[in-house]
Amino acid sequence: MKRVIVEALVLDRVHNTPVVLLRIENTNRVLPIWIGSCEALALSMALDGVEFPRPMTHDLLLNVLEALDAKLEKVIIHSIKDNTYYASLILKDLSYGEDEDAPYIEVDARPSDSIVLATKKGVPIYVSNELVLENSIEYTAQDEEKEQFKEFVDKLDIDQFRRLVKDEQSEDDERSG
Amino acid sequence: MKRVIVEALVLDRVHNTPVVLLRIENTNRVLPIWIGSCEALALSMALDGVEFPRPMTHDLLLNVLEALDAKLEKVIIHSIKDNTYYASLILKDLSYGEDEDAPYIEVDARPSDSIVLATKKGVPIYVSNELVLENSIEYTAQDEEKEQFKEFVDKLDIDQFRRLVKDEQSEDDERSG
Repeated sequence: MKRVIVEALVLDRVHNTPVVLLRIENTNRVLPIWIGSCEALALSMALDGVEFPRPMTHDLLLNVLEALDAKLEKVIIHSIKDNTYYASLILKDLSYGEDEDAPYIEVDARPSDSIVLATKKGVPIYVSNELVLENSIEYTAQDEEKEQFKEFVDKLDIDQFRRLVKDEQSEDDERSG
Repeated sequence: MKRVIVEALVLDRVHNTPVVLLRIENTNRVLPIWIGSCEALALSMALDGVEFPRPMTHDLLLNVLEALDAKLEKVIIHSIKDNTYYASLILKDLSYGEDEDAPYIEVDARPSDSIVLATKKGVPIYVSNELVLENSIEYTAQDEEKEQFKEFVDKLDIDQFRRLVKDEQSEDDERSG
C-alpha cells in the first residue's frame, strides 16, 4: 500500500463532474477519482478547514464514532470494479484501551466519504499497490483547473453555502435545520 | 413529545431552498424546516426508497452503527435557537442485549440528517411539545408544490443522479468512487 494526499479537486469538463486527485506520496503520479457534487462540496470545505456551527453529515458520523468509543484510524482505497473504486474505513474500538493488538473494524465505504472523513480527522489515506500500478497517471495540477473547480462548487449551491457560513449571524426569518 | 411523519419536501420559492414539512401525527399542523440541497437530495431518495449499489453517506453512517453493535432507536427535534432547529439521534448499545434499561446514547445532530437516517431505518421522529405549540402551522401540501420540488432536485444534479442510478450498468469510462 502507498500513502496518498489530496492534491486537488478539479473539474472534468466533459462530464461537468468533480474529480479528486490523490497524489501518491513522493511521486509525480496521481490517482484520479470521479466523485459526486455533494461529496465534492463536503471535501472542499474539509480541505479549507471551514467549520460550521452545526455538525455537517460527515461531522455527525465522526461524532457518532466518538460517542460509541471508537475512532477512525485510517482509510484504504483498495480496489476497482466496473469502473467504481471501493474503499474501507478502518475503525478502532477504544474500549480496548491502548492495546495494539485490539481488533480493527472494517466498514465498506465509497472513496469520497472516506477521503472527507480522513481529511477532517487528519488520518492517513492509503491506496493499494495494484491501483497505484494500474490506475495512477503522471500529473501536475494547474492552478487554472483548481480555480474552475472553485467556480463549480460556488455555482452548485452558493446560496446555501453563504447561509451556512453566516448561520449564526443571520438576521433573517428562516428556520433551518 | 409528538410523533411526526414526513409530509412533503417542497420548495421555498423566495430563497430557492428545500423545506421539509413534518406532519404532527393526527393533526392538520406541520412543522416546516428549511434544509440544505444535498440533505434534500438524500432525503428525497430515502423517501422514494431508491437504493444504490454503493453506500451513500447516510447509509455509511448506519453501517458504522451496525459495525459497532449499535442502532438508531429514534430521533428527536427538541429545540430552536437563533432560527436553527436542533435534534438528537438516540442510539442504543446492542451489546447490552434486550435489556430495556440499557443506557441510551444521545448524539447532537441537524434535523435534516436525523430525518434522512430515521426515514432510511423506519424509526420514529419526535418533536418537542414546545416546538409543536410555538412553531407548527396549519398546512395542506399541494401536489403542485411537490412537483416543483422534484424539478428543483432534478436540476440540482441530474447528471450525477442519473449516473448513480445507472451505476453498475454504465458502459462509459468514468471511474467513480
